Amino acid sequence: MIRAAVYGAAGYGGAELLRLLLLHPDLEVRQATSRDPGRAVDQVHPGLRGLTDLVLEPSDPEVLAPELDAIFLALPHGESAAVVPRILARCPGARVYDLAQDFRTGHEAEGWVYGFPELNRDALGEATRVACPGCFATAILLATVPAIACGDVPLRVIVDAKTGSSGSGSTPSAGTHHPARAATHRAYKVFGHQHETEIAAVWERLTAGNAPPLSLVPQSTPLVRGIYACCYVIHAAPPTDPAAWYRRFYAPSPFVRLVEEPPNVLNVRGTNNADLYVRQDGPVTLVIAAIDNLVRGAAGQAVQCLNLGFGMPEDRGLRLPALVP
Amino acid sequence: MIRAAVYGAAGYGGAELLRLLLLHPDLEVRQATSRDPGRAVDQVHPGLRGLTDLVLEPSDPEVLAPELDAIFLALPHGESAAVVPRILARCPGARVYDLAQDFRTGHEAEGWVYGFPELNRDALGEATRVACPGCFATAILLATVPAIACGDVPLRVIVDAKTGSSGSGSTPSAGTHHPARAATHRAYKVFGHQHETEIAAVWERLTAGNAPPLSLVPQSTPLVRGIYACCYVIHAAPPTDPAAWYRRFYAPSPFVRLVEEPPNVLNVRGTNNADLYVRQDGPVTLVIAAIDNLVRGAAGQAVQCLNLGFGMPEDRGLRLPALVP
Amino acid sequence: MIRAAVYGAAGYGGAELLRLLLLHPDLEVRQATSRDPGRAVDQVHPGLRGLTDLVLEPSDPEVLAPELDAIFLALPHGESAAVVPRILARCPGARVYDLAQDFRTGHEAEGWVYGFPELNRDALGEATRVACPGCFATAILLATVPAIACGDVPLRVIVDAKTGSSGSGSTPSAGTHHPARAATHRAYKVFGHQHETEIAAVWERLTAGNAPPLSLVPQSTPLVRGIYACCYVIHAAPPTDPAAWYRRFYAPSPFVRLVEEPPNVLNVRGTNNADLYVRQDGPVTLVIAAIDNLVRGAAGQAVQCLNLGFGMPEDRGLRLPALVP
Amino acid sequence: MIRAAVYGAAGYGGAELLRLLLLHPDLEVRQATSRDPGRAVDQVHPGLRGLTDLVLEPSDPEVLAPELDAIFLALPHGESAAVVPRILARCPGARVYDLAQDFRTGHEAEGWVYGFPELNRDALGEATRVACPGCFATAILLATVPAIACGDVPLRVIVDAKTGSSGSGSTPSAGTHHPARAATHRAYKVFGHQHETEIAAVWERLTAGNAPPLSLVPQSTPLVRGIYACCYVIHAAPPTDPAAWYRRFYAPSPFVRLVEEPPNVLNVRGTNNADLYVRQDGPVTLVIAAIDNLVRGAAGQAVQCLNLGFGMPEDRGLRLPALVP
Repeated sequence: MIRAAVYGAAGYGGAELLRLLLLHPDLEVRQATSRDPGRAVDQVHPGLRGLTDLVLEPSDPEVLAPELDAIFLALPHGESAAVVPRILARCPGARVYDLAQDFRTGHEAEGWVYGFPELNRDALGEATRVACPGCFATAILLATVPAIACGDVPLRVIVDAKTGSSGSGSTPSAGTHHPARAATHRAYKVFGHQHETEIAAVWERLTAGNAPPLSLVPQSTPLVRGIYACCYVIHAAPPTDPAAWYRRFYAPSPFVRLVEEPPNVLNVRGTNNADLYVRQDGPVTLVIAAIDNLVRGAAGQAVQCLNLGFGMPEDRGLRLPALVP
Repeated sequence: MIRAAVYGAAGYGGAELLRLLLLHPDLEVRQATSRDPGRAVDQVHPGLRGLTDLVLEPSDPEVLAPELDAIFLALPHGESAAVVPRILARCPGARVYDLAQDFRTGHEAEGWVYGFPELNRDALGEATRVACPGCFATAILLATVPAIACGDVPLRVIVDAKTGSSGSGSTPSAGTHHPARAATHRAYKVFGHQHETEIAAVWERLTAGNAPPLSLVPQSTPLVRGIYACCYVIHAAPPTDPAAWYRRFYAPSPFVRLVEEPPNVLNVRGTNNADLYVRQDGPVTLVIAAIDNLVRGAAGQAVQCLNLGFGMPEDRGLRLPALVP
Repeated sequence: MIRAAVYGAAGYGGAELLRLLLLHPDLEVRQATSRDPGRAVDQVHPGLRGLTDLVLEPSDPEVLAPELDAIFLALPHGESAAVVPRILARCPGARVYDLAQDFRTGHEAEGWVYGFPELNRDALGEATRVACPGCFATAILLATVPAIACGDVPLRVIVDAKTGSSGSGSTPSAGTHHPARAATHRAYKVFGHQHETEIAAVWERLTAGNAPPLSLVPQSTPLVRGIYACCYVIHAAPPTDPAAWYRRFYAPSPFVRLVEEPPNVLNVRGTNNADLYVRQDGPVTLVIAAIDNLVRGAAGQAVQCLNLGFGMPEDRGLRLPALVP
Repeated sequence: MIRAAVYGAAGYGGAELLRLLLLHPDLEVRQATSRDPGRAVDQVHPGLRGLTDLVLEPSDPEVLAPELDAIFLALPHGESAAVVPRILARCPGARVYDLAQDFRTGHEAEGWVYGFPELNRDALGEATRVACPGCFATAILLATVPAIACGDVPLRVIVDAKTGSSGSGSTPSAGTHHPARAATHRAYKVFGHQHETEIAAVWERLTAGNAPPLSLVPQSTPLVRGIYACCYVIHAAPPTDPAAWYRRFYAPSPFVRLVEEPPNVLNVRGTNNADLYVRQDGPVTLVIAAIDNLVRGAAGQAVQCLNLGFGMPEDRGLRLPALVP
């Protein structure tokens, strides 16, 4: 049994990690931490009752058991960078899976691997420090990597990406205030979302520094869970059978399904699955990716990386049904 | 033209007052204030664009024009009490309509009238200081006053009352965080809601101090607008035709409709209407009241009181269609 | 391994049965039927992909394998009665779990047991024909059986019960049309819901024919999943510590949790759990029950009955986390 | 007073026409028809109570008063074509405003004018037969006409357009079943929506037959009201200040607002306003249009056309506040 801890377990990312890890057949959650410790986990997350007797411990590396095999971090962006060195000093044998953006780009020299399994499967088998992609980045990379990697480099990629409110985390804010959000559709951070950096980093690697420009328009919807990324890949000339790139690229990937009808984000809710849809209109290849931002875009992808890291099948403990309706 | 001001115009109550007052044919909104002044009203409330050029002024009585005829206050509970004396000193000729709970009970000696028009129509014609009822209190009083006033005093009244999220105001909080609220149904303040006091005060008056006990169970729903109060009035013996009490009591009331089918809160959205449904099951008389908490439960009722105070028809400027669907 | 079939697998009840049964460690789903057969199960229910290769067969008893051990029926009300004799003739060794209302009352002589495990645990161990309770009945019985069974017989029980839209099934109708339902709160079948019969039947048994009158007011909310039943049990005199009745009655029940704060229906979403809250106000005992109508109110309860019938722990395969948020 | 009738008044388009027309100061609704006649209008549309005593008449041209000045048709697509000749024969002096798609393209020779006021203002002043645009077409034309008309002809236009459920009308269907729609985001009719034809017809006219190709991806969201069209206009070279085209083109248009921040569809709910946002990213010009599909995308636009046709200010009776939140 893999001995694991969730560091920062009170938010949505932490809750989702616990939901998945408590059901994982080869892993035992030994510890869960919070900056507001002392409460039972199933008091903070009543949906987990009957599954755990854990009590939240302080988010202090000193409380971690040195023999831990795996530590998941679900901290606000910016907090992981400060605490990871102390965690690694305390638990030198542990593999670390970080959900924040702190180590996603520019930290390869320190041994960090970008936790995008469909592209980095081999590296993740060896990795002891894994920086898990952001939710938008996950959806957009799933939708674009085959086109970037397999065909001519596109002239440009336009991404019209919609997200549910849980992607903003568990802290209330004006943008997630229920009266304001319930009947809203609104773009934000137009052409300036922070996930552009990690997407570009992958694309640069795949094109030897020749990545196409990205025009990203994120949008808030009344969904709670889900990302629906419509990616318009524009080539100089109509490509020949782009869907074939996707079939080939994702043949070994248990979580990616190429669908014949446009996907519905409801059908992946609660799962690590990604539904992809590919359609061509002359030089424009539309690829739609539908994922659950908290699972495939966060906690589930981290568990998928852990499975690879511990030599298990990629989908161990992650073959979950969606909650529909 | 009545010269009016909205004091505290940036929140939901203030926005709704402006929505109604800007359309009122006999009134002109001269001023609107906020603790965060300087912005155009239609920038803070983009839904009002094309209807006003007002700019928010500071919430300081000194900015008010002394010749104002009517001042509406839409401040957080507790703030009205401090500022009203200064406002009255500044604008001695103005009638004041306060949406907060500060003056609803215990301030009759200072001249405050409870702004429940269906009961206090005559007093409101004279009143210069009006304390408008809370949203739950409005729905529950509409549903129970005829039974309390017309029949034998009931043994007890049980109220199962549901509210949309806008009733909590425009400040984000854990209970109105979209991911948490969107699929929620949850009771709160069981047998202990602050509106019980003002309901009891009315009932005591109607029964000469012999009011029945009230068991009130407020509940949060995923609605944005709306209160749906199911009131179970329990008599010692089955009353004879309680629906007749309601037909008689509300005969002169343009906003109250007695419906034959159970009401749907959607059908009063955006309006000052109250749909009431009366059904008897032995000694239990069920009365359901459906209102829009921001209109009939707040801003619209205040305008209704103003209409009475200025000698206009009660529904002047308030004959609005609901927004359906 | 228990060999099971789902008869009528294309609707919401059938989908939920499959979601639970496909994860059950001691059971294998051998067959699934539909009146529109020929499609893969995971095409009809895309949320189940990766979990099953089943193809829908015709809903004809002749297609069932005679050696089946358990058959679940998820048919429209009225259709079970016609087909069950033919199913039993075809599969004489199978236990039958029916989700419709056809056999819930008046069929005890034919061997039907009412599938309410917390009350009928022993009988369900022997039962080969189980009529599973309706969703409202489940919530209301969970909330009232201890009060009916343990204390003096109440004078009356008032139930204010709210349901999500999935309780109406997968067939579109005016009441579940999205534009009409999304901002709705509306009562229906006031004092006349069909579940009153099965509730009364249980109460009559517990009181030796002296059951209290029930005033039931069902209500439609914008929830998709969930029942939130507020039950007001009215005694002649204030009972002494009614919460103790509930603690005692549900001590052996793994799915019932007595909560200190009012429950939130979101916290049981996707699970077989029931959260109960007990509060007293003089002679009125409020008991709130929050359940997921498709799990505890339908498919999950049926699996719970099967577990008892096959000598397994009641919660075998049913210890599920809620999907929150 | 203009004497008007609404033909087909029981659906969402008819209800919205009535909501607007009953408030119009220069128009009187004389008749309203339905294929299910005999009921009071405010019984079918309870949100209109207090505003009208009309009773639905049969949808038969013979019931129309010959002296009507204006007739609005809100029939299912395909039904207008059959009935319009009979209506015109019955009421030869009436101007006709049709909300269906029957006459939008290919009927210019019969005198039909496309009811898009910002482009056809002069023609609408004379028109007696007006075919009002579809909701998607309205949003997309508002967002693209200035770019098509003012700059070089683009290479291509990609439109990622989202719609609320009310756009599907008042008849229940699988796609608008509440449990299925409430947490859905799903594309449909990809590259094949029926509104492409009317958009192309306008573009062809503006470019003398040289219109750019359109790649349109319609999407269903959990909104009830609203269209949010993100239009990516791709030029061969980065255009110079495309926002200036929009400022110039819409200078005389009271309903179009160019906003500095990305629009929120909530802020136009219930109004005839269109919020437009223009941003450039090299050769890509993003234009977002946010409208209410039932007002600006249907009934409101028809009233706007009527105002022009009867020589009134374009916004007569249409200066409405949005319902927020």
